[in-house]
Amino acid sequence: MCELLGMNCNVPTDICFSFTGFQARGGLVDEHQDGWGIAFFEGKGVRQFIDSKASAHSPIAELVRNYPIHSKNVISHIRKATQGEVRLENAHPFMRELWGQYWIFAHNGDLGKEFKPKFDGTYLPVGNTDSEYAFCYFLQELKKKFGTQAPPQGKLFDEIARLTLEVAVNHAEFNFLLSNGDHFFAHCSTNLSYIVRRAPFTQAKLKDKDVQIDFGQVTTDKDQVAVIATYPLTNNETWTTMDRGTLCLFQEGDVVAQVKTVAGKEKDECAN
Amino acid sequence: MCELLGMNCNVPTDICFSFTGFQARGGLVDEHQDGWGIAFFEGKGVRQFIDSKASAHSPIAELVRNYPIHSKNVISHIRKATQGEVRLENAHPFMRELWGQYWIFAHNGDLGKEFKPKFDGTYLPVGNTDSEYAFCYFLQELKKKFGTQAPPQGKLFDEIARLTLEVAVNHAEFNFLLSNGDHFFAHCSTNLSYIVRRAPFTQAKLKDKDVQIDFGQVTTDKDQVAVIATYPLTNNETWTTMDRGTLCLFQEGDVVAQVKTVAGKEKDECAN
Repeated sequence: MCELLGMNCNVPTDICFSFTGFQARGGLVDEHQDGWGIAFFEGKGVRQFIDSKASAHSPIAELVRNYPIHSKNVISHIRKATQGEVRLENAHPFMRELWGQYWIFAHNGDLGKEFKPKFDGTYLPVGNTDSEYAFCYFLQELKKKFGTQAPPQGKLFDEIARLTLEVAVNHAEFNFLLSNGDHFFAHCSTNLSYIVRRAPFTQAKLKDKDVQIDFGQVTTDKDQVAVIATYPLTNNETWTTMDRGTLCLFQEGDVVAQVKTVAGKEKDECAN
Repeated sequence: MCELLGMNCNVPTDICFSFTGFQARGGLVDEHQDGWGIAFFEGKGVRQFIDSKASAHSPIAELVRNYPIHSKNVISHIRKATQGEVRLENAHPFMRELWGQYWIFAHNGDLGKEFKPKFDGTYLPVGNTDSEYAFCYFLQELKKKFGTQAPPQGKLFDEIARLTLEVAVNHAEFNFLLSNGDHFFAHCSTNLSYIVRRAPFTQAKLKDKDVQIDFGQVTTDKDQVAVIATYPLTNNETWTTMDRGTLCLFQEGDVVAQVKTVAGKEKDECAN
């Protein structure tokens, strides 16, 4: 099983606490040893850290865990490879530019060996994962449909739902996180949960490491933070398990739109 | 003055020694305090670290200096802003994908306020530096000319020389480093020097920090490493000062092609 971690907030927030638990699953308490990565939006810019080493043993992951980078949109991934070798170019999240915005994508699932989208050269994969193939196909189709200008939010959401359906319906598992820094999309095909933290803030305790935090000490009453993960990261809070076959749009730390896809599957494996 | 640092080698090599001196120029012994960045090719993949803080005071730069990342092509930049605010999206090097390869670009110079290339939407700048504008224009024109397949090396070199001339001839200073992991281009408009290190290897001593290294202890007889920098980084070796108005192609740690451009200028300022 590979795993996803995302964060969407209304104020720039650091992800050190959540990443501490998530990092441990990459080769320490779990088996995701085939690379990891994280991308932080900072204004229009993106900091992307990727590594083909296990996150639990990566000096770069140690830096990320200890150096608070404040961001409103974060996407992270720990990898257990089945499609695509263990190489840097196959580490998630992937990044491309569309409409003068950076887009970030990470995927958990398996789209099957038969998943071979047609590329017209607008975006081409650098590595050989089904995940990067799906990402490049999404951006190609978005640019084909909307041209060189970003569409209004509603149209963008509808088109991403349509593309999700197209890729997922025939091709098994397609759990993903996708963001351009303004919008944060999360699709649950098999496993994805989230929590929205807002005032009154409470204490939280990680499942994977003996670490706890009192969010009341590090937040203001106006803060709102959504954390999205393949499996809940804390054991004393109530996480929402997303229904299989659901695409959610997060903004300012909460779900603002969701739509049912038919991509939900019972299969509970992961391979990217 | 902003500054450039690049490395091109025939075996994956770490840049810790050179970066130690270069990093010190970013806010310690020099004035380049408006961000820094570095990108390492690793196979087809790229690790990119960028920061809007001064390199001398950046925890990420400390990691890069102390964590040996082995690469055959590295591009780094320390920034003193004049065009484009001090923001993450304006930090060099910039990255895009073309022909299923990542391309990395960093620029030192000033293309003037009148430099406004026409974009057709193939590649759009995310920030607002003249440097990212030039990079997006290069890739757009390369894709327009050669389509979705990379051309042979000679044709690629000729077209990059032509584009360099087009951008530089009317627009002042255009020192740049550009690589797709296979080819490493360096253009000197005002200031750029390089050194090719090969057997017999000797000791080298940094100009900007009291650090020296005996390359004989950390290399084999077959290694060949070209280091390219705005100004020489060591004070006991002979660096080649590139002629103003010269585009060089480095491969496997040496210059394999060069061409005269008419972009050389006497002006000795920097602004990106």
